[in-house]
Amino acid sequence: MTDRRMQAEPAPFTAADFAARLQRAARSAESAGLTGLLLTPGPDLLYLTGYAPVAITERITMLVVPVVGEPTMIVPRLERPDAEETAGASVFRLADWPDGSDPYEATARLLGPGRYALSDSAWAMHLLGLQGRLPDTSYVSMTTALPMLRAIKDDDELARLAAAGAAADEAYGEILQVRFAGRSETDIGNDLATLLRRFGHSQVDFTVVGSGPNGANPHHEMGDRIVERGDMVVLDFGGLKHGYGSDTTRTVHVGEPTEEEREVHEIVRRAQQAGFEAVRPGVECQEVDRAARAVITDAGYGEYFIHRVGHGIGLTTHEPPYMVEGERQPMQPGMCFSIEPGIYLPGQFGVRIEDIVTVTDEGGRRLNRTPHDMAIVE
Amino acid sequence: MTDRRMQAEPAPFTAADFAARLQRAARSAESAGLTGLLLTPGPDLLYLTGYAPVAITERITMLVVPVVGEPTMIVPRLERPDAEETAGASVFRLADWPDGSDPYEATARLLGPGRYALSDSAWAMHLLGLQGRLPDTSYVSMTTALPMLRAIKDDDELARLAAAGAAADEAYGEILQVRFAGRSETDIGNDLATLLRRFGHSQVDFTVVGSGPNGANPHHEMGDRIVERGDMVVLDFGGLKHGYGSDTTRTVHVGEPTEEEREVHEIVRRAQQAGFEAVRPGVECQEVDRAARAVITDAGYGEYFIHRVGHGIGLTTHEPPYMVEGERQPMQPGMCFSIEPGIYLPGQFGVRIEDIVTVTDEGGRRLNRTPHDMAIVE
Repeated sequence: MTDRRMQAEPAPFTAADFAARLQRAARSAESAGLTGLLLTPGPDLLYLTGYAPVAITERITMLVVPVVGEPTMIVPRLERPDAEETAGASVFRLADWPDGSDPYEATARLLGPGRYALSDSAWAMHLLGLQGRLPDTSYVSMTTALPMLRAIKDDDELARLAAAGAAADEAYGEILQVRFAGRSETDIGNDLATLLRRFGHSQVDFTVVGSGPNGANPHHEMGDRIVERGDMVVLDFGGLKHGYGSDTTRTVHVGEPTEEEREVHEIVRRAQQAGFEAVRPGVECQEVDRAARAVITDAGYGEYFIHRVGHGIGLTTHEPPYMVEGERQPMQPGMCFSIEPGIYLPGQFGVRIEDIVTVTDEGGRRLNRTPHDMAIVE
Repeated sequence: MTDRRMQAEPAPFTAADFAARLQRAARSAESAGLTGLLLTPGPDLLYLTGYAPVAITERITMLVVPVVGEPTMIVPRLERPDAEETAGASVFRLADWPDGSDPYEATARLLGPGRYALSDSAWAMHLLGLQGRLPDTSYVSMTTALPMLRAIKDDDELARLAAAGAAADEAYGEILQVRFAGRSETDIGNDLATLLRRFGHSQVDFTVVGSGPNGANPHHEMGDRIVERGDMVVLDFGGLKHGYGSDTTRTVHVGEPTEEEREVHEIVRRAQQAGFEAVRPGVECQEVDRAARAVITDAGYGEYFIHRVGHGIGLTTHEPPYMVEGERQPMQPGMCFSIEPGIYLPGQFGVRIEDIVTVTDEGGRRLNRTPHDMAIVE
């Protein structure tokens, strides 16, 4: 794919795309011994129909995809006009419920007895509402039942993820030019957000700027701390471009690093490379975590790498497959996930390096291309 | 309260505030015959502890508030430093689970057999995880069990809601000065968002601009349609200021309205007033819906008012109490909710007027103050 093609606005997904995805989902549900799928607003519903209501609220919206028969989406009556306009509207039947009626009664009528997989982030209130009305129906989370529903990306999705990764690379290239010393983490994070938008992100989800000791908290976002000369700074940033996610981490240094800083950074760089080299179709996801972790453990820093090595990415920035000890799912071509080992030294500094990688027949292919060297900033 | 005080940044809620709220919640749970409360990230957890993780993800965070004993919050290990820093951290015990372990096993250990109320928007995946491990434990949604947990606002919360309402009033005053005719709904909506931020909103949740026939779809947000002279335009906008919500609707007209447009607007104005006058402690919430609906039905437009008349507001813009037929909850001083009747004439135009109202001993008090007249814009 040329850079030129990556820059163009991709053609929207069509009713035919959604019909194919729905059929594939119903077949997967059948293979898993399910009666059907229950999708609520969020990435599953967007993937299968293109529909996202203006807001996710207490009013239930649910797409029922039976293994046999036509999918039906039930929506609040006042949102029906929006649902009718969605790209995939021709591939499902539409039902609605008006304010003042019992939405669970109306939704329950669309379900038969049996076992359904339900979107992970469906509201517990809605699940309890259905459980109270359908004693012979049971539920399992989508990640438990069909974790791979959205995991294998097609070429159009890969092109979007590559475009998001390229935009993140461009933003990183520019942020190295701004001044770090004497400015707050929040100021630098705002610069990063502006850059992501300039390079085509419609939504910025996070801009972590973890300077000095703040970098040792892997979930620190950004704060008032003024970055100083001598600081290590973790930059972890991403969002959505053309509907698909970016998620990149690089660790930079303000001025010259110490020997220890160089050494820790080099261990993390080697760990990331080892994780990347473990990517191959048929190999279990947990092997990526193990390969990266072994490098850090062997170097004596094992207790300071306190999170899994990665997560899937697509319509959301956290989704299956999870690259974690215990995940025996084999990698398959088209899967996309982060590889992001880190070392966090409490009270001192942190280092993390993260790329998004896709699985090909030959092994991993990175969707981020900026070098892994520790950049020196001013 | 003076205008001056409303403009100042309010003092943050303290550990003592959270301790008092937690004690009250535990007492309410006991009165409702519950074993305890289970709170997940979102408004319930923010209300009771001040804690909001950087993102709501597949990693479970849950505060367990037993009727007897100390509350415990379990968090992903890598988010523990954030949780330790929260204002309410001294009022609960902290537990954590590391990546690669079973988070439901760890969470289940904090629960005994019995019946728990669970945050409405808790992920279904988490509920299913607990249900699978604790067969003698049952769950009910917070809105079913304790709908009034956050419904009665104290003076500090009322001050925040009033400040948000005043900011929305100011934004509305300014938007009347911009050009409507010849510009797209999206452009006008972006102007509204900028104004809300200028008047102190940290977050803009929605800026509906429903012009001409788009106004007849009550959930239309905004689009490419170019506003024309002769259009009725529904403006419905809100977000968060100092953490509390605003939500205001006014319907304006570009140039001179027709007789029918004037008449429909006047019916909605009278309906909103009738709803407002029905507000009184001890009266059931559904009476507000009935009072407003009666005006519209009597005028012959009943079938065109297709939603409930209102919803509670606080840390979120949709929460109990819901002002809807069937809601027999009596109004109490300190409750805050919208009153927003509308008439939607398909293919023609829509009209809606919405204020946020709080219940006082004497009746309703509006938190929005701009006039209800149909403003004429250019």
